[in-house]
Amino acid sequence: MRKILLIGMGPGGADFLTMQAIEALDRARVFFLPDKGAEKAELREVREQICRRYITQPDARFVTVDIPQRDAAADDYRATVDDWHARIAARYRQILIDELPEDGCGAFLVWGDPTLYDSSLRILDRLRADGLPIDYEIIPGISAVQALAARHRIALNRIGESVVITTGRKLGAARRVADDTVVMLDGDETFAKIDPTGLDIYWGAYLGMKDEILIAGRLADVASAIQRARREARESKGWIMDAYLLRRADGDV
Amino acid sequence: MRKILLIGMGPGGADFLTMQAIEALDRARVFFLPDKGAEKAELREVREQICRRYITQPDARFVTVDIPQRDAAADDYRATVDDWHARIAARYRQILIDELPEDGCGAFLVWGDPTLYDSSLRILDRLRADGLPIDYEIIPGISAVQALAARHRIALNRIGESVVITTGRKLGAARRVADDTVVMLDGDETFAKIDPTGLDIYWGAYLGMKDEILIAGRLADVASAIQRARREARESKGWIMDAYLLRRADGDV
Repeated sequence: MRKILLIGMGPGGADFLTMQAIEALDRARVFFLPDKGAEKAELREVREQICRRYITQPDARFVTVDIPQRDAAADDYRATVDDWHARIAARYRQILIDELPEDGCGAFLVWGDPTLYDSSLRILDRLRADGLPIDYEIIPGISAVQALAARHRIALNRIGESVVITTGRKLGAARRVADDTVVMLDGDETFAKIDPTGLDIYWGAYLGMKDEILIAGRLADVASAIQRARREARESKGWIMDAYLLRRADGDV
Repeated sequence: MRKILLIGMGPGGADFLTMQAIEALDRARVFFLPDKGAEKAELREVREQICRRYITQPDARFVTVDIPQRDAAADDYRATVDDWHARIAARYRQILIDELPEDGCGAFLVWGDPTLYDSSLRILDRLRADGLPIDYEIIPGISAVQALAARHRIALNRIGESVVITTGRKLGAARRVADDTVVMLDGDETFAKIDPTGLDIYWGAYLGMKDEILIAGRLADVASAIQRARREARESKGWIMDAYLLRRADGDV
């Protein structure tokens, strides 16, 4: 049976890799590299650096997979994503069959952690549900959430309290921001649209990479500085990956 | 100035360590090992294995720190923890001054990730606030949350949805369990006391270690099996570390 390793690479730097991930990189022979378009060339380069640094198997092969574009946000977000995943799955099904021997071991390198806001796992589940005989294994990676907290030197939770991890979309729709909320996937700068009263923000982009940016402060005070920084960086690099923690300032920390 | 590294070790296995953590282990010369009592001897052993495997500095020293007991749960949980942290901080203050040269580099090895339900960071912040001139750095580690999801091969979030990370105490007090809730620090088996209607559970103990146990299913069906498994394991080993995800089964996955 074909075996697939979903390997978490952490949010950017090659030194976020775990020993387990490095060992997994050496078990796989075929590496499937999704290509979402030219704007992410720099990210692909970091991934290739990781591969060059850690993969020692001389017969390792790299297979680029063109990822279909997602339709523009429709009213039904879930259906849009579901349709997109179906098209990606069809693409991967063919490539897995064509490129991986029946007893072969392949790998997907995943930014951050494969279990948090990443679709690879769902796509493999979908292929299995459709009857493709594959087995897979997940190797956890440091998530952007953790890199964010580490670089700002803050705990994610307050003593005995919960943490919510959510998306920009959900944050915008929430009636009240939970006291400690980590936001990922916020391309729309939702942090600048919500009521900032009582909220602190700890924002980070390109976490763990050479161009890392960190900004923290009262949300009311720094929201526009964050907007400027993220627009300038996205403009000059062509892409951005960022995340932030919102914390209600009236509690103890 | 004294420098302290808070190094995340992951939830148990030596191969959860990141390259960054391994490099950090080699930068420190003094390792502070909290001792919470004999029942955790096995955990201390895993930590010592990690140290033996990765620390190459011949002059590395290990300093055991007796951690004061926390008072039994009082009405005011936060005040109880706060008081406990004050006592731990006083203990560490003395030990850092006694054992670490003024320009020395020391390390705390932290299970999981130092930013999630761990008090080391707060204790260092407290020492700094009290005027002790120390600098510190956080090296993220794989959290039990991530190991749990990886071993059960499930995503933490559903498409576009939030994830709540909380404690047993907060879960017990919640009016409604959020659709995707990770629970840590639940010594009281709160999962068996809540209304199980519509909930699936993915439970894991000793994640990444040789005695790892995984149980998943409808909460109503498996809650008592989990209780049996965790009591037997805790009885035979003298300690347990576990975590679980509760997922409302009516959504898609």
